[in-house]
Amino acid sequence: MKRIALKIEYDGTSYAGWQRQVNAMTIQQRIEDALKDTLGLETPVIGAGRTDAGVHARGQVAHFDTGLDIPGDRYAFILNQKLPPDIRIRESRECASSFHARKSAIGKHYRYTLFVSRQDTAIFRNFSCHIPVKLDLEKMKEAATFLEGEHDFSAFRAAGSNIVGTVRTIYDLTVTGEGDLIHIDVTGNGFLYNMVRIIAGTLTEVGKGKLEPETVREILEIKDRTLAGMTMPAKGLIMEEVFYDRDRLEQYLNNKE
Amino acid sequence: MKRIALKIEYDGTSYAGWQRQVNAMTIQQRIEDALKDTLGLETPVIGAGRTDAGVHARGQVAHFDTGLDIPGDRYAFILNQKLPPDIRIRESRECASSFHARKSAIGKHYRYTLFVSRQDTAIFRNFSCHIPVKLDLEKMKEAATFLEGEHDFSAFRAAGSNIVGTVRTIYDLTVTGEGDLIHIDVTGNGFLYNMVRIIAGTLTEVGKGKLEPETVREILEIKDRTLAGMTMPAKGLIMEEVFYDRDRLEQYLNNKE
Repeated sequence: MKRIALKIEYDGTSYAGWQRQVNAMTIQQRIEDALKDTLGLETPVIGAGRTDAGVHARGQVAHFDTGLDIPGDRYAFILNQKLPPDIRIRESRECASSFHARKSAIGKHYRYTLFVSRQDTAIFRNFSCHIPVKLDLEKMKEAATFLEGEHDFSAFRAAGSNIVGTVRTIYDLTVTGEGDLIHIDVTGNGFLYNMVRIIAGTLTEVGKGKLEPETVREILEIKDRTLAGMTMPAKGLIMEEVFYDRDRLEQYLNNKE
Repeated sequence: MKRIALKIEYDGTSYAGWQRQVNAMTIQQRIEDALKDTLGLETPVIGAGRTDAGVHARGQVAHFDTGLDIPGDRYAFILNQKLPPDIRIRESRECASSFHARKSAIGKHYRYTLFVSRQDTAIFRNFSCHIPVKLDLEKMKEAATFLEGEHDFSAFRAAGSNIVGTVRTIYDLTVTGEGDLIHIDVTGNGFLYNMVRIIAGTLTEVGKGKLEPETVREILEIKDRTLAGMTMPAKGLIMEEVFYDRDRLEQYLNNKE
C-alpha cells in the first residue's frame, strides 16, 4: 500500500466546496470520481481543510492510499486527463504512510482579495469582493497587527459554530495594495469556521472608517461576534498553501518580513 | 447631441469578440442592447479595436452619441445594472464630439500571459496559455529587443490578411516573469491582425530554444510568416490600455524604463 499526496488548485466558483455531499458537486467528489474512472481506484481522498462553497485553492493538499504500482508523480497527469479544467492536480508524489493531509498540517496561508473601485471588475470577478468606496490601507495595516499572535478568536468565528478550543495563533497578517486590489494574507496554525472571511470583513470596516484600528483589539478581548465585521463572500477567498514542515513555514515567514 | 466615451473591462471567454455579428453574441452587441433596454437608446457603440473571440480587455475604449440629458459619468452605473458580470463599464464620461475611439487612438498596450508549469492552472486558466516546459526568460527578453522600433511586420500577421501598410512601431516590448507566469507586454502605435499573438508565439519558441533571439531579427527582414512562431490562443491576450494623449503615452513609457 502506498500513500499519495496531491497539491490541488481549483476555481471553486461552480462547486459546493471541498467536502463530498449528497446532492451537490464538490471538489473531493470530482477527484474521487476521477480516481475511480481512470484507475478503478475507490478510495477516500482526505483534504487538509474543508473549503466552503465558492472558495478557491491554489495549494489545497490531500492524500489517498493505493495498492497500484504507479509512480507517485504520474497521478497528476492521469487525474488531469479526467478532471474538468477548473480543478488541476498541480503535483503528486508518494509520501510516508504516516503523513495525513489534515492532521500533519502545522499551518495554513489564506488570501482574501478586495477589488476597490467604483465599478466592479469583469476579469477578476470570481476571485475578489467588490468594494465601491475608497479604503484606508494604513488603518487596515494597523488593525491587522492587533490580530497577529495567539488569541481567543471567539469574536471571529461563525455564530453558532461549536468548537471547544477557540484559541489560535496568527503568525502573520499582511495587508497589501496592488493597483485596484487589496490582498489580506493570513497565515496561522489553524482557523475557526469563517474566521478568515470575518477578519477580512472587520479589516474592511476599518478601511471604511467604521471601526478604529484599536477597536479590533477590544473586539478580541470582549469576544463578541456581533462587534466584528460581516463574513465576506466566499469568492474572494483562496487557500494558498498548507504547511507541514516547520523549517519551510519559518523560511516563508522570514521572507515576508 | 453629446458624445460619451466608455472604458470597458471584459472577460471575453464567452463571446465571439468585440464586433457585432449575426449569429454569435459579442461585447458590442451586449452594450448596444443594454443602452436600448435601459434608456431606449439605439445607437452604434464604436470600439477602439476589434478584439477576437476569447480575447479579453481591461481597457477597451468605445464611444457613442446620445441626445439624452444624462451626466456622462452616470452611464457606467446605468449600463452595469443591465450588463452581465463578465462585462463591466469601468468609467464613462462626456467627451468632445471630435473624439473617435478608434481614429483618435495613438497607441495600444496588449498583454499576453503564459503559465509555465508542468500542470495547468485552474484559477487563471481563461487568462493564460499553458506552457508545460521551462522557458529561458533571458533569451525571450533579448529577442524582444529586436522587435522594438519601427519595422515591417509582414512576418507577424495572420497569413492571408490583407492590409496595404505593414509597417508599425512597437514603442515597448517587455517580458516579465512573475512566479509561474510570464507576461509579454507590447505597446505600439498599431497592430496587424494577430500580430501580438504571433509575437507571443515567436517569443515562446525562443524561450523553448527552438529559435535563437537573433533569428527574430532575420524573420523581420525576410518577412516570411512561416518562419515566425504560431498564433497563440486568444485566451492569453488582454487589451490593457488605449492611448489618446501623447503626454500620457510618453509618461507611461518613461515609467516602464
